[in-house]
Amino acid sequence: MATSESRISTNTNTIRFGILGCAEIARKVSQAIILSPNSTLHVIGSRSIEKARAYAKANNFHPTTKIYGSYDEVLDDHEVDAVYIPLPTSLHVEWAVRAAEKKKHILCEKPVALNVKDLDVILNACDSNGVQFMDGTMWMHHPRTRIMADFLADSRRFGQLKTVQSCFTFAADEDFLQNDIRVKPDLDALGALGDAGWYCIRAILWAANYELPKTVTALRITENGARVILSCDASLQWEDGKVATFNCSFLSNLTMDITAIGTKGTLHINDFIIPYKEAEASFSTVSEGWFTDMALEWNKKPSEHIVTTDLPQQALMIKEFSALVDGIKRHGLQPEKKWSTLSRKTHLVIDAVIASIDKGFAPVEV
Amino acid sequence: MATSESRISTNTNTIRFGILGCAEIARKVSQAIILSPNSTLHVIGSRSIEKARAYAKANNFHPTTKIYGSYDEVLDDHEVDAVYIPLPTSLHVEWAVRAAEKKKHILCEKPVALNVKDLDVILNACDSNGVQFMDGTMWMHHPRTRIMADFLADSRRFGQLKTVQSCFTFAADEDFLQNDIRVKPDLDALGALGDAGWYCIRAILWAANYELPKTVTALRITENGARVILSCDASLQWEDGKVATFNCSFLSNLTMDITAIGTKGTLHINDFIIPYKEAEASFSTVSEGWFTDMALEWNKKPSEHIVTTDLPQQALMIKEFSALVDGIKRHGLQPEKKWSTLSRKTHLVIDAVIASIDKGFAPVEV
Repeated sequence: MATSESRISTNTNTIRFGILGCAEIARKVSQAIILSPNSTLHVIGSRSIEKARAYAKANNFHPTTKIYGSYDEVLDDHEVDAVYIPLPTSLHVEWAVRAAEKKKHILCEKPVALNVKDLDVILNACDSNGVQFMDGTMWMHHPRTRIMADFLADSRRFGQLKTVQSCFTFAADEDFLQNDIRVKPDLDALGALGDAGWYCIRAILWAANYELPKTVTALRITENGARVILSCDASLQWEDGKVATFNCSFLSNLTMDITAIGTKGTLHINDFIIPYKEAEASFSTVSEGWFTDMALEWNKKPSEHIVTTDLPQQALMIKEFSALVDGIKRHGLQPEKKWSTLSRKTHLVIDAVIASIDKGFAPVEV
Repeated sequence: MATSESRISTNTNTIRFGILGCAEIARKVSQAIILSPNSTLHVIGSRSIEKARAYAKANNFHPTTKIYGSYDEVLDDHEVDAVYIPLPTSLHVEWAVRAAEKKKHILCEKPVALNVKDLDVILNACDSNGVQFMDGTMWMHHPRTRIMADFLADSRRFGQLKTVQSCFTFAADEDFLQNDIRVKPDLDALGALGDAGWYCIRAILWAANYELPKTVTALRITENGARVILSCDASLQWEDGKVATFNCSFLSNLTMDITAIGTKGTLHINDFIIPYKEAEASFSTVSEGWFTDMALEWNKKPSEHIVTTDLPQQALMIKEFSALVDGIKRHGLQPEKKWSTLSRKTHLVIDAVIASIDKGFAPVEV
């Protein structure tokens, strides 16, 4: 990890971040901003300057990190290139649009919005102001993800995708289930679907090379007293016969799987969102698996693939985002639309799951 | 493995098997009968005595193994205690009933019948003739299965079951897809659902401690030109909120998973039907998984559990079945109903999947 001295980069291609709010997840992302070689943590803003000060101290931010008592001050700071928005989802439209209008590039926590309509307000604001948009889905940036994608794209080793199963569950404690923003209808109304389900849906789309399904069917949900989803199972289906299912929950033990099965190969990963270990992550594959004579055993065991990384995935996310911002800022490039497209596809599926629930768990066209 | 001399046991508790037909799967089971310490392969019968002779020779059956040119001769042989029935499913009712009427104990390949109505004809015949019934689901008899069940039953390590995902897929070759009995409507009309799906459904029921789901919903099927199922996805739901999904297919790479998620623990197994290796099998568990500070890593990796066995699971199945037959034959015990109950529950779910397909993929009460 970089020392605190080296955090203050004098490189001209260093992107200066402002953070809106003192969310728990912002601790991890602020460290990532510090770790990434092309970014600096310029300012943290909170509605309470005392809270921001305490947060900066607790997280050992460099003394030169500015501290503001409002989000507007962050947006008005001309030295800030980009903002990271870890606010409750229901506040994203307001603050992302204001940030875009101030020409701040935007890294926004997921879910980005409560629905595609709101998302489009954000993305249109980014478009019309020429700023980069990216959501905070860290695992997309782990080098393992690209290597797994290479396997899935390989017609010889994997063939044609047939099935994806994904789950992300964690056993929230009583405090979370009572007080976390993710169980509050006025803050994160999508509950477990927008939080944990986001990753499953993204994983499924990723495995399907981002081809949207034709139909989505919610299978079952559990809600809290305020009708916020605490667990959800759903199925996605494509015209060509591909089927995916996912399970997301606040009520089950920590599990994060992708199983992708093709005509010729199978991929298994059990820690896709947050690797067991930061520096070294693995996944397993098997191609053209079959049996020995009389089906006594398999003819091969799956192969374990280990991928090492110097920077953790969250720092690689910041590095990628900052490089895109640098391209716009210093080289006149256009914003990279890939990331907003992925956010939008993910939200289209979330909307379809909600629509299916509203229709009594009937299939819904995406 | 026992030498051929030692196969001819003179123990009074040796159960003498007759096999009806020269199926490919019977090669594995005949070896298991030979391997199991309480059984002998007494006779192989085929509609063609030449075929039976060639089969006995090709599989190195002991010279004293009798060879008959009809199934009736097997049933009429008073030295035969039990028959193994690996015939096409559509023939099971006829031959299982005839075997039961001849007081032969029955080990029957899966699927046992085309539907629960037919199954009940078989089970009633077994009941009224006092013979033991067991289906040929080998993995139930691996010592690993019991150890995994202990984990699932442990309120401290696993908690309450919430989700099960299971799949069994294999990439059948062109010859299989054209000619195998499992794609023929007059032989194994349940296709991939009765063959591969059998295992997924059994795995789900096993994980749910054999509690039947309240509803079953088929999600998607692929059929061949003769309307035999080649792949099927379905969801099972229980009153208490448990949800299971499965995927079975002849059209995807070899994959055989159970993922069971409880409130406190998770079980993963990727070779549950046929272990990668005969003598040593594994599974992985994690209990109360959580993250390190800032969710940088997991606080623990899953534990890998290795289970060794002297006898392969198919021989342990024969041993268990033979011990039950011995109890009836020599000690006046009643047949063990556990195994027919499990077959029946599995078939109830298969019937519900078929009913859901027939109703346009609507939920069906079990």
